[in-house]
Amino acid sequence: MSRFFSEKYASLVPYTPGEQPKDRKFIKLNTNESPFPPSEKAIAYARQASEGLQLYSDPECRALTEKMAETLGVDFDEVLMTNGSDEILNFAFMAFCDKDHGAVFPDITYGFYPVFAEINGVPYKEIPLKDDFTIGISDYFALGKTIFIANPNAPTGIALSRDEIEEIVKKNPDSVVVIDEAYVDFGGESAVPLICKYDNLLVTGTFSKSRSMAGARLGFGVGNRELIRDLNTVKYSTNPYNVNAMTQAAGLGTLHDAAYTKENCRTVCETREYTKNALSSLGFTQTESRTNFLFASHPKFPGDSLYTLLRENGILIRHFKNPRICDYNRITVGSREEMETLIKTITKLLEEK
Amino acid sequence: MSRFFSEKYASLVPYTPGEQPKDRKFIKLNTNESPFPPSEKAIAYARQASEGLQLYSDPECRALTEKMAETLGVDFDEVLMTNGSDEILNFAFMAFCDKDHGAVFPDITYGFYPVFAEINGVPYKEIPLKDDFTIGISDYFALGKTIFIANPNAPTGIALSRDEIEEIVKKNPDSVVVIDEAYVDFGGESAVPLICKYDNLLVTGTFSKSRSMAGARLGFGVGNRELIRDLNTVKYSTNPYNVNAMTQAAGLGTLHDAAYTKENCRTVCETREYTKNALSSLGFTQTESRTNFLFASHPKFPGDSLYTLLRENGILIRHFKNPRICDYNRITVGSREEMETLIKTITKLLEEK
Repeated sequence: MSRFFSEKYASLVPYTPGEQPKDRKFIKLNTNESPFPPSEKAIAYARQASEGLQLYSDPECRALTEKMAETLGVDFDEVLMTNGSDEILNFAFMAFCDKDHGAVFPDITYGFYPVFAEINGVPYKEIPLKDDFTIGISDYFALGKTIFIANPNAPTGIALSRDEIEEIVKKNPDSVVVIDEAYVDFGGESAVPLICKYDNLLVTGTFSKSRSMAGARLGFGVGNRELIRDLNTVKYSTNPYNVNAMTQAAGLGTLHDAAYTKENCRTVCETREYTKNALSSLGFTQTESRTNFLFASHPKFPGDSLYTLLRENGILIRHFKNPRICDYNRITVGSREEMETLIKTITKLLEEK
Repeated sequence: MSRFFSEKYASLVPYTPGEQPKDRKFIKLNTNESPFPPSEKAIAYARQASEGLQLYSDPECRALTEKMAETLGVDFDEVLMTNGSDEILNFAFMAFCDKDHGAVFPDITYGFYPVFAEINGVPYKEIPLKDDFTIGISDYFALGKTIFIANPNAPTGIALSRDEIEEIVKKNPDSVVVIDEAYVDFGGESAVPLICKYDNLLVTGTFSKSRSMAGARLGFGVGNRELIRDLNTVKYSTNPYNVNAMTQAAGLGTLHDAAYTKENCRTVCETREYTKNALSSLGFTQTESRTNFLFASHPKFPGDSLYTLLRENGILIRHFKNPRICDYNRITVGSREEMETLIKTITKLLEEK
């Protein structure tokens, strides 16, 4: 830290992204990326945009936002596109929380929420998941704080139903409820249809997972137009041209190729069920995943030991040090072939035990 | 504003980007874009990156940062790449200012500085430019505040020498001095060589102007490694994957084609001198521009009237309502052909007066 760094950040511990090794070729099952390339339309649109980069990108992201709104069945001014969904989440912490209006979220969830709270000087409370890693919805009733829930949750993979989300939204009429749907396309139920009924619901999403665009950085928020206006005020006060022209184009191409996304999600879910069954046969305990990853523990492997052994065998998975889940690992659902290699490798490791 | 918007932003007035009309084809001389397409290498590299978007971009931007550091003659850990230079400027306001350590900048400068200050709750003071629109460097000595100076300044186009910048940096040893060099490649003197001598100097730059990449959103900060570490702490606490893979690739391609950038800058400077002389002949008063724009007023045209008349004639320039400069307009240096059309149009307007 330099002697000039503001004291308000003295105790700030930044988020640690999943490792992206460059020295060696791994089977990467650690950052929930898609095993499929982006849509050919995404690539074609991005290529065309790359030729006109001398001009600023559209700060309104008009063409993309219009298509996104149409896809979601909402209006143009109920959507905001951002530089990844981390940006829309940070904007929500900025806009709807402050020192007098804190945040709450589960103790086991996306590890960035406490960091967003810290950097924005927002007091926060973590509500423990139940012992089976599910969210007890009544724990979130009438809290008087801004609520952040990843649904399906990460790294547990467990989903709440839309009705359960609605209960939480209804029971907090004076606070914004942010539902982070990064993984919704793999079997979750989206809360987007509720935004016309509740002015306190913000749903966020990403093109990183189901739409194979992690490298392009594209996220979005959907909510009542007043909420979106506030988030736009934050955007136009920090980075008006937040989404570059190539990403806007790639996003539009992807939305014009919805069948491709749908088919990829179907395949990922199929591969997930294959992997889940195979891991169960090998003695793993798993949650009911509605995402593109599995959350698994094994009585013979402490979580970090399985992580290390697989790494030595060329397979990266994600281990979290939090004591409540340190026996588990989060395993991204890759291609069928990658998952077969994973199963073979674990079988071998078990035999060597 | 929604009923949920944090009170801390109640009086926030966002930045207004220059207009990007979509209904009609204009000669765009209003947002200081380059008249030249991006380097062919930039396009080729970006195209290749678009095919692998399913994987996250490198949060470290390693290949790009290494090449940028080499280009600038500094070390890898003295550079941070960002999603446009607005992002690095906002990071600097976050990291090096707070309610107890305010900001100062000229009264006439990049209009985003007061917005960055407002959104970060940073008290700020605007120091008037001298009557000839130059910066009086002694006004910035020993202020005990974080200093933001665009050099060359915008929209005036006037540059301070590196020696003058060094004086300001030297006279504020306990505050960070941020030199925003968005326009430096058109005849300014960069302060980058000073970063090894002073731990309180941060230089920012952009690929939007001289490198024809406004639509790709790529900016950077250069400074002592401790300053860069602080800025990285902010980045990893807001948006670790801030620069997408296509932009990283395009930036790298551009840096591998330095001769193209240099030649474009030479042409822009040549066209600027042509335009400046022509405008002088038509009776315009102008500043000594070291940028890719001119700042000009005419006794027969109030600033907003010239803006409106040119707009009616299919040419967009930028007018600012600030009373000190409302007689002036900022005119981007486009292609030679565009500037000839501008001169012809103004000549016609003068004849019609």
